[in-house]
Amino acid sequence: MNTALIVLAAGQGSRMKSDLPKVLHEVAGASLLVHALRSGDGIDPARIVVVTGHGGAQVAAAARDWREEISIATQEEQLGTAHAVAQASAALAEFEGDAVVLYGDTPFIAPDTLRAMLDERRAGADVVVLGFEAADPGSYGRLKTGPDGLEAIVEAKEATPEELAITLCNSGVICADRATLFELIEAVDNKNAKGEYYLTDIVEIARGRALRCAAVTCDEAETLGVNSRRDMAAAETVFQSGMRAAMMDNGVTLQSPDTTYFSFDTHIGPDTVVGPHVVFGPGVTVENGAEIRAFSHLEDCHVARGAQIGPYARLRPGAELQEGARVGNFCEIKNAVVEPGAKVNHLTYIGDARVGEKANIGAGTITCNYDGVFKHHTDIGAGAFIGSNSALVAPVSIAQGGYVASGSVVTSDVGPGDLAIARARQVNKTGLGARMVARLKAMKEKR
Amino acid sequence: MNTALIVLAAGQGSRMKSDLPKVLHEVAGASLLVHALRSGDGIDPARIVVVTGHGGAQVAAAARDWREEISIATQEEQLGTAHAVAQASAALAEFEGDAVVLYGDTPFIAPDTLRAMLDERRAGADVVVLGFEAADPGSYGRLKTGPDGLEAIVEAKEATPEELAITLCNSGVICADRATLFELIEAVDNKNAKGEYYLTDIVEIARGRALRCAAVTCDEAETLGVNSRRDMAAAETVFQSGMRAAMMDNGVTLQSPDTTYFSFDTHIGPDTVVGPHVVFGPGVTVENGAEIRAFSHLEDCHVARGAQIGPYARLRPGAELQEGARVGNFCEIKNAVVEPGAKVNHLTYIGDARVGEKANIGAGTITCNYDGVFKHHTDIGAGAFIGSNSALVAPVSIAQGGYVASGSVVTSDVGPGDLAIARARQVNKTGLGARMVARLKAMKEKR
Amino acid sequence: MNTALIVLAAGQGSRMKSDLPKVLHEVAGASLLVHALRSGDGIDPARIVVVTGHGGAQVAAAARDWREEISIATQEEQLGTAHAVAQASAALAEFEGDAVVLYGDTPFIAPDTLRAMLDERRAGADVVVLGFEAADPGSYGRLKTGPDGLEAIVEAKEATPEELAITLCNSGVICADRATLFELIEAVDNKNAKGEYYLTDIVEIARGRALRCAAVTCDEAETLGVNSRRDMAAAETVFQSGMRAAMMDNGVTLQSPDTTYFSFDTHIGPDTVVGPHVVFGPGVTVENGAEIRAFSHLEDCHVARGAQIGPYARLRPGAELQEGARVGNFCEIKNAVVEPGAKVNHLTYIGDARVGEKANIGAGTITCNYDGVFKHHTDIGAGAFIGSNSALVAPVSIAQGGYVASGSVVTSDVGPGDLAIARARQVNKTGLGARMVARLKAMKEKR
Repeated sequence: MNTALIVLAAGQGSRMKSDLPKVLHEVAGASLLVHALRSGDGIDPARIVVVTGHGGAQVAAAARDWREEISIATQEEQLGTAHAVAQASAALAEFEGDAVVLYGDTPFIAPDTLRAMLDERRAGADVVVLGFEAADPGSYGRLKTGPDGLEAIVEAKEATPEELAITLCNSGVICADRATLFELIEAVDNKNAKGEYYLTDIVEIARGRALRCAAVTCDEAETLGVNSRRDMAAAETVFQSGMRAAMMDNGVTLQSPDTTYFSFDTHIGPDTVVGPHVVFGPGVTVENGAEIRAFSHLEDCHVARGAQIGPYARLRPGAELQEGARVGNFCEIKNAVVEPGAKVNHLTYIGDARVGEKANIGAGTITCNYDGVFKHHTDIGAGAFIGSNSALVAPVSIAQGGYVASGSVVTSDVGPGDLAIARARQVNKTGLGARMVARLKAMKEKR
Repeated sequence: MNTALIVLAAGQGSRMKSDLPKVLHEVAGASLLVHALRSGDGIDPARIVVVTGHGGAQVAAAARDWREEISIATQEEQLGTAHAVAQASAALAEFEGDAVVLYGDTPFIAPDTLRAMLDERRAGADVVVLGFEAADPGSYGRLKTGPDGLEAIVEAKEATPEELAITLCNSGVICADRATLFELIEAVDNKNAKGEYYLTDIVEIARGRALRCAAVTCDEAETLGVNSRRDMAAAETVFQSGMRAAMMDNGVTLQSPDTTYFSFDTHIGPDTVVGPHVVFGPGVTVENGAEIRAFSHLEDCHVARGAQIGPYARLRPGAELQEGARVGNFCEIKNAVVEPGAKVNHLTYIGDARVGEKANIGAGTITCNYDGVFKHHTDIGAGAFIGSNSALVAPVSIAQGGYVASGSVVTSDVGPGDLAIARARQVNKTGLGARMVARLKAMKEKR
Repeated sequence: MNTALIVLAAGQGSRMKSDLPKVLHEVAGASLLVHALRSGDGIDPARIVVVTGHGGAQVAAAARDWREEISIATQEEQLGTAHAVAQASAALAEFEGDAVVLYGDTPFIAPDTLRAMLDERRAGADVVVLGFEAADPGSYGRLKTGPDGLEAIVEAKEATPEELAITLCNSGVICADRATLFELIEAVDNKNAKGEYYLTDIVEIARGRALRCAAVTCDEAETLGVNSRRDMAAAETVFQSGMRAAMMDNGVTLQSPDTTYFSFDTHIGPDTVVGPHVVFGPGVTVENGAEIRAFSHLEDCHVARGAQIGPYARLRPGAELQEGARVGNFCEIKNAVVEPGAKVNHLTYIGDARVGEKANIGAGTITCNYDGVFKHHTDIGAGAFIGSNSALVAPVSIAQGGYVASGSVVTSDVGPGDLAIARARQVNKTGLGARMVARLKAMKEKR
């Protein structure tokens, strides 16, 4: 059956103390909203509606940036979760199938959990609510279950002592047939202390209409919601712990797991060793048996089998390290291919370039790729040798086996096997160094 | 009423195994002594006396470096806390008002706690002792309180089982009218196992004289005292945890809070994002909405609104990044202003310089600011373009819109809109690179 | 009495998901195997036999790399621990004395623990088994002790409830007279569920022969065995925690202990301060009162008294920093001596070189030590001044007090006190910079 996703993303998040809408804050390199949308992807939704409010334009842009065909519904006033879901009804008017309601500030619902909710629907439940066993149920709503499935959601404030002892709590995530959902929502009223329309009220209404309700249970960590920067830090902890464990289970060595920072989409092959203090930004894939040494920083790049980077290597977007390539300390690689066995080991900037197979780039080499307006390409052939402290002024190419003398500023192409030299002749002035320093010191004393 | 502060800073700290006096060891970028003095500042003391002993000259210098008008009293022999306080009596002979005794190895007493002690004095207590609810009271002295206020301080060794069950423990911090304090101290004897004069004995003496004693309670973490490097590490943990939480509550995102290191005086505005593995040394202020990326290191510098630094950016003392300025990887900025929108992105050293608005500094640029004796200034005008791998030999100025060709060594001023070029002409020698490498390889084989 | 060590290192470690034999995975800069061999060193073994199986050639090479005279025995099929030990019998056929069985995947048995086992042998026990008090005994074998010493090792599966309540568990480490050990092993059968020969069975056999068995107890942490990458991470945690505590107890300040990574052989003198995020690879010694600032990375190098490195300093193998030397940010030192008081502070590569006493190396200096085939030496004399952004093309020497002008490429030796200059003359072209940028911008607009 078709499914539709409704993601509520209208909240202000005043406790974030931020100009940025809450759902756009990032955890592990992706916004909370994108995390929620990725969860939803697990049920392969035919339609997605994001309900926006505070910072609506920014949120809508982020949603569509992630997937163009997302529909946006606007909640002008924040009148409660049922009201928020109701805003999605127009966008889904023609839709036949189940609708799942997720929250833009709840990033970690597992795809399997959503699939379990749909399975419960298939098994005959009209309304499926996601619950979790709370370590400390506190003020959470309690899911009261019986032989008849989910019997009620009881707010903590209105709960009897017996009900308060229930540890199965409400996550807010709900699934129902689209038509049923909106019919039930129409019956929700706002006769409560805050004057809001609560989505959870649909369970009572459904029961009143003799519909069957059911609860599905997930890990408490999945239901973690973010309302403050401390919550964000807690979410990072949950994410990073899980990712680190998964990496190790997959055969990756993390020398100091607590100091490794992953993004939501980091992929690393077995037998790769990751040193202490390494940061993976979004978009990184590392193949088997690579070595990512301490203090390295990677974003949107690819590291092939057996390649070695760091310590202190920075791979920026578009860096592609091929098999056995090496990038060493204080080196930055951007939009560049480093071919098999090539070495870029010390204090070097390689941008908009190709470094050919087994080429050797000396310490302090700079590709001068920007003229103030345009970016230009540098092409370094296989087996080329670039002497230390050279500047390669792009566009320029060093052909296969080309040799650039140390300290050269290369502005013209170098042919295969040619030697390029572009440096001034050295003049030594006898005793002048000592005299100069003596004079400067004398001046200093006079001051 | 006037208050005086007496800070005991004479201890040796033999468990530190250090040549440095204990109170000069640093936590969060300030010595323990300065932390204690900063606590004391919360009650705006009219007079401060630091009692020194081991490493007295160094400790006195550190105290006066923090505030010139601090009085130093010397405790020649370490004969106990009452004896230490007694050394301050001459310096305060004429002083009228309350005296508060703090400890130079106890860095975290909150200013509010000291104010609460003074309030208790105002409310009629003659002697006010600071206590804390101990999670594990162990060998701490117990504060025995009753309807009549603080009735006694009972040493753990001499306590009845009933008294041992008391969890309110003695921090050692005491407040009394200056005259009363020294009168009571005169009555303290050293008839105990260690033959020392204990400050805590004044409570019993005061009670004997029908003076009223009172206890004020603070968090146990405030009373953390440092006697070993492990204690220092524990103090760092207390400080950093508190600072991280406060930063997040204030609207700062810490992507990986456990890897962020703050100093005692770090100030960061809301909506600034701090990446993993960032170190803030003393004297740093960051405005709103800045981005401090991974592996950055800042000391005594200022980062304005919307500026972006790192990864791997080092801002040294006197670095001032103005609005929207950017400093990138492997860049060091010292005693230099980077004006709005200017970019210093790769492998660059900017020292003793101005980088004008929207100027672009190419990769590998070095300001050559030192001639072996003097430091000189480099001035780079608005919109200037410094080609990659250039050296700017100070004193030198590149005027507004000046353009330096890549790989140049600039020794003379460059006028507005002028192009400066200072590099050797390139010579390509056909096939010589290949022949040279072949010859070298042949030599290697012969060896 | 002579002792022999038998180290079992034949296991596959399939849960590691690795092409590398399990015992060659590294913790704290040394393989698990080397950790086990180092433990064994505590009893000064006259003979060492390593029993290899999976990846035998690699394991044997690693063992012999650590100590040449190690004997290798091969276990072709993995038929259990008794079978593994039996493979060592030929190598020890002539040996008279005690044999201790260790495990190549159990890195942290303390030398004192092994000595305690030998003491127990001296005291009359025929077979000594190492046990530990388990926090969670779970499926560990239980050591059943009585007035008569060790009475039995009971497998958890076969234990009575009373036996399950025993918390003293079997580590597998065993010691006995060499001849006794192999005699007992011959009697072990494989009539069990897995059809394996278990070393622990020798206790029952020994008891049947009226031999005396005894148990020695160690900390549970010592017996940590590694079967997965998660176990490796746990082993790192055990190691690093212990090392950090030991360092602090020895008078070293760790500003942020949780972010400091040590190797098994790191040695640091008192009053050295280590900043946050520092990585010590193998082979590092640091003397007293040095300063290792944040983000530094050291391997196989020596830092003398009062030297200061970092932040972001990388010391590679063969770096020797003498008293009071300084190496600053984004600097790499390899196979080079930095003599007393010399400064290498910014963005510099010093490889295969000597930097003389009090020499000053300017920002961006590169020693060009590699010509594509050979490495060459750079010699910088005492008090020399190397201007910023210079390239020193080795082999080359700058004599005492030599002065290299900023931006020079030095290819010939510089005499004492001489000034060397090797840079192109600067040409300024009036207005050309502005015209060029305007033209480029116009081109951009046309595109």
